[in-house]
Amino acid sequence: MKKLINDPTDYVDEMLDGMVAAYPELRRLPETEVVVRTDGPPTDEVAVVSGGGSGHEPTHAGYVGDGMLAGAAAGAVFTSPTADQLAEMVRETDGGRGVLCVVKNYEGDVMNFDTGAEMAELDGVEVQQVVVDDDVAVEDSLYTSGRRGVCGTVLVHKCAGAKAAEGADLDEVARVAEKVVDNVGTMGVALTSCVTPEKGEPTFELAEDEIELGIGIHGEPGVERTGTMTADEVADTLLDAVLDDLGVGSGEEVVTIVNGMGGTPLSELYILQRRVTERLDAEGIDVHDAWVGDYMTSLDMMGCSVTVCRVDDELTDLLDAPTETPALTVRE
Amino acid sequence: MKKLINDPTDYVDEMLDGMVAAYPELRRLPETEVVVRTDGPPTDEVAVVSGGGSGHEPTHAGYVGDGMLAGAAAGAVFTSPTADQLAEMVRETDGGRGVLCVVKNYEGDVMNFDTGAEMAELDGVEVQQVVVDDDVAVEDSLYTSGRRGVCGTVLVHKCAGAKAAEGADLDEVARVAEKVVDNVGTMGVALTSCVTPEKGEPTFELAEDEIELGIGIHGEPGVERTGTMTADEVADTLLDAVLDDLGVGSGEEVVTIVNGMGGTPLSELYILQRRVTERLDAEGIDVHDAWVGDYMTSLDMMGCSVTVCRVDDELTDLLDAPTETPALTVRE
Repeated sequence: MKKLINDPTDYVDEMLDGMVAAYPELRRLPETEVVVRTDGPPTDEVAVVSGGGSGHEPTHAGYVGDGMLAGAAAGAVFTSPTADQLAEMVRETDGGRGVLCVVKNYEGDVMNFDTGAEMAELDGVEVQQVVVDDDVAVEDSLYTSGRRGVCGTVLVHKCAGAKAAEGADLDEVARVAEKVVDNVGTMGVALTSCVTPEKGEPTFELAEDEIELGIGIHGEPGVERTGTMTADEVADTLLDAVLDDLGVGSGEEVVTIVNGMGGTPLSELYILQRRVTERLDAEGIDVHDAWVGDYMTSLDMMGCSVTVCRVDDELTDLLDAPTETPALTVRE
Repeated sequence: MKKLINDPTDYVDEMLDGMVAAYPELRRLPETEVVVRTDGPPTDEVAVVSGGGSGHEPTHAGYVGDGMLAGAAAGAVFTSPTADQLAEMVRETDGGRGVLCVVKNYEGDVMNFDTGAEMAELDGVEVQQVVVDDDVAVEDSLYTSGRRGVCGTVLVHKCAGAKAAEGADLDEVARVAEKVVDNVGTMGVALTSCVTPEKGEPTFELAEDEIELGIGIHGEPGVERTGTMTADEVADTLLDAVLDDLGVGSGEEVVTIVNGMGGTPLSELYILQRRVTERLDAEGIDVHDAWVGDYMTSLDMMGCSVTVCRVDDELTDLLDAPTETPALTVRE
């Protein structure tokens, strides 16, 4: 498989250097893979931070900026950041009002964020964590006890970041983050495997007439391998699973994400969105906002995920609040 | 090749329906593939419009919105919109101060925009056109006399749209658009062919150890097939060709785009950006802004292009002006 890379061992380092080169609003903490705001942590706000393995860009560093994350730590591809680096991120982003860590539910991430938080707490930083487990496809998977954390995490970043920007205290920011976690579900599908830079070969094999439903963002097994389906069938399958899990029904309001896995063209995501909107309209579910694009990817995987989040006035206000990050800008 | 589509003949129709479903700020003109602003053309502004074949999303409809395009017409995949639809777009978007058509230099587009503009002029609309031909790779190509219009077109949309939003007259908006055209250059590379929905097979074949330099956004031939290169070598090759063509040198200021062709992960674009910044810094060229992402794609092609635009205070002010479109949002 061909890639636009140099030495695979430099992949994360060079990617982060490229990000901060493109966005002077971001900087790397020296000798780390932690990206923070160049203007430093606001002293009057709780810092919301996140992190995880690389290969999901723009997740997570693409969401660092005014109104969203104060920092993001990148591990090696599909590998948790170290506890040391997470501790440093927490210490560096604390402006005195505490730090909320948004953690995707993978064993390595949870363990290292726990340790990192403890290390920072020893230095007097107040830390809380919220674990996102929005993937409705499978319980317990490779790297995970319970459900996996996937694209719904970006909505946690947005809402928690906006709440922090309002000046709310750490308990309130954590409460909002948990509220999103309680109301969001996602399911994905792969048409092709991702190819990691180090290996240079597909992580798994899918035949030319085969897709995998419920795929994880590291290529972890889903729920079913099946023959190829139309876009509408894919949209229905993913949406049904998520709506069923959330118990969302007529008269409720949601925000949706049709997310590309990295190798799928935007045009195909719009074709899926058409069906998602049609279905939600038919079910009497009100769509406050629909995000379409590559928000949480799996390297070059062809495929998509559908996220639904039940919202109320508090969450819609937070989602609509202004932010400016490399991957998401919302105007006043 | 697997795709997330339904019937290939519905590809463009369903894609546009999905766009307007996701973005209520956009609407389709009935029974056309023309997307315009739902709030109608501002009567106090020149309308800037564009269009071309589909398959390059988010180009062009993704740039419709406040501060950029007033409308965009989509043809079939890699096929010009019809003159009838272009005429209707021009008539519908005219708020009384005239319409500037931004046309990528392909024979079908140029011919149909010419005819469409003439038809609208018969109805009393004042129309001017600017033809973008930023691809420095080849003179005369499949579908083109002269140079092809590629990713630099997005900078024309941004600057012309911002000038129109200032209330400038048609001559002034056209002057700014021409100024961008005169100062922008792009060159691309393909790692894989795109696959059109109708054909379902690669448009051309590239071996596993081969890339094509100077590729067009429809898979038209480039300047050279060569062995795979590192990201830095690719960045150098594309950047050298563009800088040489533009004659940009030390002390000048530029805006750059590292653009993904649709199937390339964002992380790889950042790795390329790192080298582009390093090189421009070394040459004493000041980078006002660096855009990284999928701005003008070729379906699912793996590859990228590098765009450089020489800018002055007028152009940087226009590039920095606020806009809100599906694919580009700039805060005040």
